[in-house]
Amino acid sequence: MAEEAEVVKNKQVVLKNYATGFVKDSDFIIKTDSTMSLKVPESSSKGVLVKNFYLSCDPYLSFLLQKSDSSLEAQFSRFSLGSTINGFGVAKVVDSRHPKFEKGDLVWGITGWEEYSLIAEPDSLFKIEHTDVPLSHYTGLLGMPGLTAYGGLFEVCNPKKGEKVFVSAASGAVGQLVGQFAKLTGCHVVGSAGSREKVDLLKNKLGFDDAFNYKEEQGLDAALKRYFPEGIDIYFENVGGKMLDAVLLNMRMHGRIAVCGLISQYNLEKPEGLYNVASILFKRLRVEGFAVFDYLHLYPKFLDLVLPQIRAKKITYVEDIAEGLENGPAALVGLFSGRNVGKQVVLVARE
Amino acid sequence: MAEEAEVVKNKQVVLKNYATGFVKDSDFIIKTDSTMSLKVPESSSKGVLVKNFYLSCDPYLSFLLQKSDSSLEAQFSRFSLGSTINGFGVAKVVDSRHPKFEKGDLVWGITGWEEYSLIAEPDSLFKIEHTDVPLSHYTGLLGMPGLTAYGGLFEVCNPKKGEKVFVSAASGAVGQLVGQFAKLTGCHVVGSAGSREKVDLLKNKLGFDDAFNYKEEQGLDAALKRYFPEGIDIYFENVGGKMLDAVLLNMRMHGRIAVCGLISQYNLEKPEGLYNVASILFKRLRVEGFAVFDYLHLYPKFLDLVLPQIRAKKITYVEDIAEGLENGPAALVGLFSGRNVGKQVVLVARE
Repeated sequence: MAEEAEVVKNKQVVLKNYATGFVKDSDFIIKTDSTMSLKVPESSSKGVLVKNFYLSCDPYLSFLLQKSDSSLEAQFSRFSLGSTINGFGVAKVVDSRHPKFEKGDLVWGITGWEEYSLIAEPDSLFKIEHTDVPLSHYTGLLGMPGLTAYGGLFEVCNPKKGEKVFVSAASGAVGQLVGQFAKLTGCHVVGSAGSREKVDLLKNKLGFDDAFNYKEEQGLDAALKRYFPEGIDIYFENVGGKMLDAVLLNMRMHGRIAVCGLISQYNLEKPEGLYNVASILFKRLRVEGFAVFDYLHLYPKFLDLVLPQIRAKKITYVEDIAEGLENGPAALVGLFSGRNVGKQVVLVARE
Repeated sequence: MAEEAEVVKNKQVVLKNYATGFVKDSDFIIKTDSTMSLKVPESSSKGVLVKNFYLSCDPYLSFLLQKSDSSLEAQFSRFSLGSTINGFGVAKVVDSRHPKFEKGDLVWGITGWEEYSLIAEPDSLFKIEHTDVPLSHYTGLLGMPGLTAYGGLFEVCNPKKGEKVFVSAASGAVGQLVGQFAKLTGCHVVGSAGSREKVDLLKNKLGFDDAFNYKEEQGLDAALKRYFPEGIDIYFENVGGKMLDAVLLNMRMHGRIAVCGLISQYNLEKPEGLYNVASILFKRLRVEGFAVFDYLHLYPKFLDLVLPQIRAKKITYVEDIAEGLENGPAALVGLFSGRNVGKQVVLVARE
């Protein structure tokens, strides 16, 4: 006879309204009356049941929370009203019917914004093999943002020693790594961010050659001309809008722009226009959109590069950890106003 | 003692005013009182003196004729007021002090808009080896536009059999070849052009699978959805502006856009805005500007591909030949209103 499964309370972040414009705290409910049986049901032939430790606040979630059509173009299916939202996270396997995972395994990948999640299709979960680094890093440095930075910089931009690299949203989850990877390659790296605190971080903790607060600049074109008098070889694009337009004017011949994100545009009714398109022609630029999904096969190679650098303290990673699932919505909302300093993580439970 | 050199009259097209907005006939003068000695002067240590047969009307000339700053970004130096303009052409060597060229050689490359030109730095001239094709083709199919089409399609876009290809300004000097090269690769090819006559040419003479007149469409997005219900894999961009914006909405995942020209934008005071930039991210597109100068080393390989196809009549080429140097300015001006049908050439003298 089957062992009686333990049943626990399971706090959840549930979508109440689709966002119109900027996502708001009030678009979510914290549901406290759900329960979860800590056994994978027999009907779930390869399910995995996990206890969630860390959840990742990522800009792409904005598309899945919006009512507008733009969400149709996202890589995931949109969240349903009244259901628990999901995203990348770090968790521990409590029970498994999947041959690849067993009880006690640490994993990262798509999980629910709740205390415990039943993952019906766990094939895309990564097993965490290296635990001598903070587990939260698997939402950032060693997770999706890390692989995004790696794929976007090395596969899309192919940086060479001495090249001039500009990174926007540079203290963010991806940007801070792009800058450090570019420095390791011998590039000259300048970042932009939205506060003095972040600029200070870039210059004094993350090893950028220089950084500026875009909110304090009279004009972005003039700022870029000051920081890149010879022009920009590589732009790692996280923000879009006016910044991209100014960058186009300041690119060098045969420059490369990796389009990783356009966070300044996600919550606008109509995106801003891009006017300096002719620079793409005249300077023979390559502008390339990419997503981490194109580079998942590189994850082992990425770990081989990055783990020794972390252990040698040659790569550092700044996280902004919100404690408690109930603070998750506010942490997520804060992304879109740049409230977070470093990678925004939500701590659900300690290991 | 040096032989007395023959001196001939040398009609010239001279720039009178820098263009403001659209180039006009009246921005030029036809100068009829110049003369030319048909000997390379001893002071010109490696000069070549040529008799011009055909001149090429190319969109890039617009930058060299304009007063605006955009010209600073062009690949050539701007024309001087009161001087003869220059551009690509086909000519015959009348006298040479350059070891690579001798009297009687046919050449193509940068020459003057005049009957005879002294080319002081002829290193970039190509010697014409194959004369069993019309000489005028060396301004188009076998010249700069041909190599542009080849480099842009094969090197930038890497087309694969069965892919869906869209070409704008498709009956133009470059577009008509892009379409034919893509058909030879086994792609499905649709072109846009600005008149019924051109659309007819695309469908019935140039072998495009389909074509449409963008001026007769209610909306470009709707037109593209009709011609590409499954979306576009490759867009060969010659026009820019609203067409590019509509194309972005209709690209398929991992599509490629070769930016060869933006002719709709060249004469505007301020370019049109591009709003669908997010498609580059969501569909992981590659948008790449290029110029023929990146592919000059491929010219022999290009000839190997294209000459047999011409001889087998598998590639055809439509030219619009204006007779007489004095009709050159009007022919050039006509490019920007799409008056020409096929590659616009000016016949200066018959061989």
